Amino acid sequence: MPFLQNVWYMAAWEEELAAGSTIGRTIVDRQVVLWRDADGTPSALLDRCPHRLVPLHKGDVKDGALVCGYHGLGFDPAGKCVINPHGRPTESLCVPSFPCVIEHEIVWIWIGDPARASRSEIPDLSFIGGSPRHGISRGYMPTAAAHQLLTDNILDLSHADYLHPDTLGGGSISRSKPVVSRGAGHSLRVSWTALDEEPLPIMRPNLGCDRADMWTDVLWYPNGVMVLSITAAPAGTDPETGIKTVNAHIMTPETDTQTHYFYCNSRNFRTDDEEYNNQRAAALRRAFELEDKPIVEAQQRSLGNRNFMEMRPALLPIDAGSVAARRIYGALLTEQMDTLFAVRSASSFI
Amino acid sequence: MPFLQNVWYMAAWEEELAAGSTIGRTIVDRQVVLWRDADGTPSALLDRCPHRLVPLHKGDVKDGALVCGYHGLGFDPAGKCVINPHGRPTESLCVPSFPCVIEHEIVWIWIGDPARASRSEIPDLSFIGGSPRHGISRGYMPTAAAHQLLTDNILDLSHADYLHPDTLGGGSISRSKPVVSRGAGHSLRVSWTALDEEPLPIMRPNLGCDRADMWTDVLWYPNGVMVLSITAAPAGTDPETGIKTVNAHIMTPETDTQTHYFYCNSRNFRTDDEEYNNQRAAALRRAFELEDKPIVEAQQRSLGNRNFMEMRPALLPIDAGSVAARRIYGALLTEQMDTLFAVRSASSFI
Amino acid sequence: MPFLQNVWYMAAWEEELAAGSTIGRTIVDRQVVLWRDADGTPSALLDRCPHRLVPLHKGDVKDGALVCGYHGLGFDPAGKCVINPHGRPTESLCVPSFPCVIEHEIVWIWIGDPARASRSEIPDLSFIGGSPRHGISRGYMPTAAAHQLLTDNILDLSHADYLHPDTLGGGSISRSKPVVSRGAGHSLRVSWTALDEEPLPIMRPNLGCDRADMWTDVLWYPNGVMVLSITAAPAGTDPETGIKTVNAHIMTPETDTQTHYFYCNSRNFRTDDEEYNNQRAAALRRAFELEDKPIVEAQQRSLGNRNFMEMRPALLPIDAGSVAARRIYGALLTEQMDTLFAVRSASSFI
Repeated sequence: MPFLQNVWYMAAWEEELAAGSTIGRTIVDRQVVLWRDADGTPSALLDRCPHRLVPLHKGDVKDGALVCGYHGLGFDPAGKCVINPHGRPTESLCVPSFPCVIEHEIVWIWIGDPARASRSEIPDLSFIGGSPRHGISRGYMPTAAAHQLLTDNILDLSHADYLHPDTLGGGSISRSKPVVSRGAGHSLRVSWTALDEEPLPIMRPNLGCDRADMWTDVLWYPNGVMVLSITAAPAGTDPETGIKTVNAHIMTPETDTQTHYFYCNSRNFRTDDEEYNNQRAAALRRAFELEDKPIVEAQQRSLGNRNFMEMRPALLPIDAGSVAARRIYGALLTEQMDTLFAVRSASSFI
Repeated sequence: MPFLQNVWYMAAWEEELAAGSTIGRTIVDRQVVLWRDADGTPSALLDRCPHRLVPLHKGDVKDGALVCGYHGLGFDPAGKCVINPHGRPTESLCVPSFPCVIEHEIVWIWIGDPARASRSEIPDLSFIGGSPRHGISRGYMPTAAAHQLLTDNILDLSHADYLHPDTLGGGSISRSKPVVSRGAGHSLRVSWTALDEEPLPIMRPNLGCDRADMWTDVLWYPNGVMVLSITAAPAGTDPETGIKTVNAHIMTPETDTQTHYFYCNSRNFRTDDEEYNNQRAAALRRAFELEDKPIVEAQQRSLGNRNFMEMRPALLPIDAGSVAARRIYGALLTEQMDTLFAVRSASSFI
Repeated sequence: MPFLQNVWYMAAWEEELAAGSTIGRTIVDRQVVLWRDADGTPSALLDRCPHRLVPLHKGDVKDGALVCGYHGLGFDPAGKCVINPHGRPTESLCVPSFPCVIEHEIVWIWIGDPARASRSEIPDLSFIGGSPRHGISRGYMPTAAAHQLLTDNILDLSHADYLHPDTLGGGSISRSKPVVSRGAGHSLRVSWTALDEEPLPIMRPNLGCDRADMWTDVLWYPNGVMVLSITAAPAGTDPETGIKTVNAHIMTPETDTQTHYFYCNSRNFRTDDEEYNNQRAAALRRAFELEDKPIVEAQQRSLGNRNFMEMRPALLPIDAGSVAARRIYGALLTEQMDTLFAVRSASSFI
């Protein structure tokens, strides 16, 4: 399956990439090296020295250049060779580079046409930077499954009632119906309204009641970014006085069957309670690593190299969000191929 | 290589599948889930939920249904959807099912045409149920080799003289000649008669003599079931007063190069001696796991994906049994393909 | 990629193959068993019993024969079946054999035309046998990379300045230029002269000075044998009074992407100091295992199944030696194929 090229992909949490360090990571089938200068500026290059083709992430950052660990060639953020201990730095020694920025504490990379890389296209994740230190946690979970199986998982939250019954389930999502609507740009929104329902187990202690009203909302972007918000209040009370969590689930494709799963959870209650924050982070990590990851990886093994839709699954009303998202993604892929074709046709007249 | 479809395959020891539990296992290339209701009734379904294609063995058995762990769809033993928390259970939500029965403390599955699945075709392994508790032991050893390499191993017991010299060897099998004959149905019998010979090391303490008469017999069935019996008595004495072991070696194909090896060993002496039974079980397990398994897996690696007979092995008289068994298996495969062709031809006239 | 056939390949260190023992090893894609008789005579056979195709290295050496561990067939050094407990040893039971000799404490094997296997073609490694016991160390490091990537590594020693800065680097090799010349036969010599330079860190304590003259020399043979010599003396003094190390780096192809890396290090100083010898051996092993092996294996993963030169690497003057060696190797491969073609054409007239 091809991937969208002209989008910002999350490549890493900012905290993974300290100043002066490197990370080698495959993003939509491209091996890239992410690195930061001593002053923290992020850069991304093809992770392959043009000389002996070894991965550059095994090298070191020195004086604003990424220096190959095998024979000492050094490259600037644009991929230009600026150090060659064995002769002159020449044109033939350059490395492909990719636009790379840090925003919302995330390192973003743009694999496609650099001319189209506008910072304004990064989805709004400002809740991350705006959260108090003990009101947020984050993680990274590499997962052996196609990115769409993982976005499907979030676009249909009814799975929580069966897969996470003791933390995020309870039945309220299955009992309400998902409402799907288009958001700004190519985004998509799936919403569930559950009134006078059993609160999610993880929220019950903080709500202090047995019946709650809950509004759940997932905002999906074609680059695999999803923002999941839950507002909950004792049944019949003003939602403005309720509790709220805002979460990011970000699925960056690595290969056809491997995905970088980044997640982040924030809330508006007990935000100065470090101990509670750690407990909550651990509970969520357990749910993701011991419940979501095994079942989605088993789903991928069941598919093998076959595409999910080719297997003619028996889809249900709960799949409305994931079906709509796949349609948008497919249309954008078609548009991307048309553009490539137009560019090639035009250039054939030159 | 294709596999026989219209036979009962051993899928598990009954004790592996407690009431209310599930096992996911691949049998002749089909992923199946075995499960038992609270009352112990066994069932087998394709191990793939029709909704999101996740393995059903990760689900739970509830009220006579197997409930998927991802979104709560439930299926009865016939594969009919009987629980759908998200709408009506419809026809499109059914799962293929397979005949599944328990007999002789074994869970059997029939992958082929259900109309032909008759319980009477299960080979007679009544010695298993008839053995005193401390006169029998059993095991399961998944092995990375084609099922026919493993049946070959039992059909030519001369290997014991070289591979198991301290337990099951001694040279007597190599010195006698195998006699091959057809049994009932498509079964095959290989027999060795060793008179006035060195007893097998594992039998010597119980025979209490240096020379013995031994009658060894392997009964093979095309579904991979083999019954191996050894009767031994001090040389020249009445075999009726001797000691006897009856063993099952059951090779259920998983894939072309992976086999479920189930085994079971019973005897008619010291049958109330738990300590001796445990020692004997451990000695046999060591022989299988540390001697048979490594050499047969090395044989498979040596073959790679090539078929054994295509490699033009230099066969010896000791291979008479395995050659005859391969011939029966091949003829049954041809018959199976002819039937498939006849069915297809007939249906093309409709 | 094809491999040269008519050369002696190092198959093992002599000390790996004790009298009466066996080793199974793949050499240029052939699975062979090396074994030695009780008197120490080495032999090499195809590692596959003709009967059931199991690896012969799992068998035992008895009375001058290699006896298969599965059914007791025995073979002499020429591969002729001399033991068959199940009938007569016949022609059809023979195993292909390969010329195999021990020279310079190394077991050598000849995979190609046996008529061309002359002992005189083994490269001169007499320094190994001539070294005092505590003046030499050796090792074996299986490496997941093509043999040519590993020979490239030694033919361009400038890598030591970046990959081994604390032991074998220092910058002197990068600052001098490699001089490439043809040696006897199809051998190749690469030499570096570094005058009034920083000594290699590992040599500095033994030189006792801050500036040194160093002469470094690599002699390469098409069978993957390389002899690396370094002579070092305080700057401006007589090299004859300096210290010297002679090292073998031997790369025997296993498969296209896997290589047997054998190495050996000797020196002319502190040769009766066992403790120093052990420290030095450990330091070199660390450099090879923790620095060379990871980067060359990462280089191979970066290439995948593609050939290095097809990737159009940007070669530098430091690559002069490896380019020249690849040219010789390529010419010998072409010659080998021409010979095969001539043989086939001639035989087609018979």
